[in-house]
Amino acid sequence: MLEDVFLKKLKDEKATIEKYLKFYLDSLHVPGVLHEAMEYSLSAGGKRLRPFLAIAVADMFGKPREIIMPYACALEFIHTFSLIHDDLPALDNDDLRRGKPSCHKAFREDIAILAGDALNTDAFSLLFEFGEGNIKKAGKYFAKAVGGRGMTLGQVYDCTIPENERTVEKLDFINYYKTSELFIAATAGAAAWLDAADEEIKALEEYASNLGIAFQIADDILDITSTTEKLGKKVGSDAALNKVTYPVLIGIEGAQKAVEERVLKAHKALEPFKDKEGAEIFTGFGDYIKNIMAKNN
Amino acid sequence: MLEDVFLKKLKDEKATIEKYLKFYLDSLHVPGVLHEAMEYSLSAGGKRLRPFLAIAVADMFGKPREIIMPYACALEFIHTFSLIHDDLPALDNDDLRRGKPSCHKAFREDIAILAGDALNTDAFSLLFEFGEGNIKKAGKYFAKAVGGRGMTLGQVYDCTIPENERTVEKLDFINYYKTSELFIAATAGAAAWLDAADEEIKALEEYASNLGIAFQIADDILDITSTTEKLGKKVGSDAALNKVTYPVLIGIEGAQKAVEERVLKAHKALEPFKDKEGAEIFTGFGDYIKNIMAKNN
Repeated sequence: MLEDVFLKKLKDEKATIEKYLKFYLDSLHVPGVLHEAMEYSLSAGGKRLRPFLAIAVADMFGKPREIIMPYACALEFIHTFSLIHDDLPALDNDDLRRGKPSCHKAFREDIAILAGDALNTDAFSLLFEFGEGNIKKAGKYFAKAVGGRGMTLGQVYDCTIPENERTVEKLDFINYYKTSELFIAATAGAAAWLDAADEEIKALEEYASNLGIAFQIADDILDITSTTEKLGKKVGSDAALNKVTYPVLIGIEGAQKAVEERVLKAHKALEPFKDKEGAEIFTGFGDYIKNIMAKNN
Repeated sequence: MLEDVFLKKLKDEKATIEKYLKFYLDSLHVPGVLHEAMEYSLSAGGKRLRPFLAIAVADMFGKPREIIMPYACALEFIHTFSLIHDDLPALDNDDLRRGKPSCHKAFREDIAILAGDALNTDAFSLLFEFGEGNIKKAGKYFAKAVGGRGMTLGQVYDCTIPENERTVEKLDFINYYKTSELFIAATAGAAAWLDAADEEIKALEEYASNLGIAFQIADDILDITSTTEKLGKKVGSDAALNKVTYPVLIGIEGAQKAVEERVLKAHKALEPFKDKEGAEIFTGFGDYIKNIMAKNN
């Protein structure tokens, strides 16, 4: 099954990604506590999904690892910066991240804010210092996906749209900016970095746009249907916070159907790559999201 | 006097810089409250010194405005992001900035954090979206000057080096990262953006490195010797916070001498440009810093 091919490669690449993350961070020679805080959060684990997607794009286009790794790691710098700032008292006020004290608890709030800032900026340092890709083409995708037209905008929507005003359309909107945008940077942006053709970049954008939304809905379903043991992370937190999610609005079955529709759209977008070796990873990722509920019930 | 030439041009360019700042921000089409918060802080005033320096570099090299403006405005995006995050409760906890409520007071703390984040990232958007400069060469300077090897590192030093451990050497160190780094981006980085020769870039780096430190010491002197009326901003705040500054460590006369020495070094670094029209602006900036105490006493 393609899902298993995806999961195996995801697991196989994790150590390589983490080795490069450490290498690039060390190469910047950030001193003292700032380095410690950046490294603490960068090494806190996670699936490394965004760098993985960029690597899968490079593999599908037959491009060598050395070219994609700075770009792939820049994505994880950004993802980590977003988690550090998300966890701050003024935002989600989470004291724990992946079972460890979040950055502002392990260090201090001022250091956490600044470590997030440094990871945001130094994601671009990776592109400029270690990059052999098409920086002009990819930089546009990258910066757009992160700043006031991307992930950060998604955070603002999530902080400001009242729960009682959230509709399915509004949730799609929030999820698109919060999750799809960085998936787009990880796929379409990676393709731009590798100088792919415009129609290939567009196809990956359509894929990632739908898959990001599906990924977020699936996460909301699991928060209701799964158990902490099966998932390896705390469930029921949305309900505890009275968060309005897809399952709350249209039920678990309706939400599962929405996931399947989004995955179908994502798979259709992969059509231009059907003869490319390595494209099955992207289909496998979609299958994984689609089957996530059945597996974790 | 060159100081007057500098001050006249600084005043003359302000409106142009502010017009471009608005134009670029509007061109990004950031919606809603995020746009409002970014614009609120971007339009809060200030001397616009960093974009001005970049413009002065372009003028000295005879390059057109259209090329330098995205880079110049990206510097002000960064400066504004740093002010927003500096003012946060976890950092300097300042409720006022230039006589107006600081961003987290005018909006909310979460919005201020995210508006700062967006300005940090979207400074790079300006370089990628509107840039015709040498982005690979300038991007290195720019990202280095801002992230964990630059301004943000300076902030961390300022937050973590205890007042009773501050020596003249440590103050130079903090001031270099907090102030000189972005001055370097504004001069040497701007020259890189305009594809200047490496030795010209190096000379401007030496200039800005010394002038940034002089600028900060002069500011510390004024905080003691001037009055709120003369300066147009609150004085005496360092003493109120028991901050250890140059005048505290070596007296006002010693601090003034240190300013003069730094300005002299900065002026010497300008040697390669002595026949270039427009170089007098940089000398004038040094003179301005040197004479700041005499003028504001």
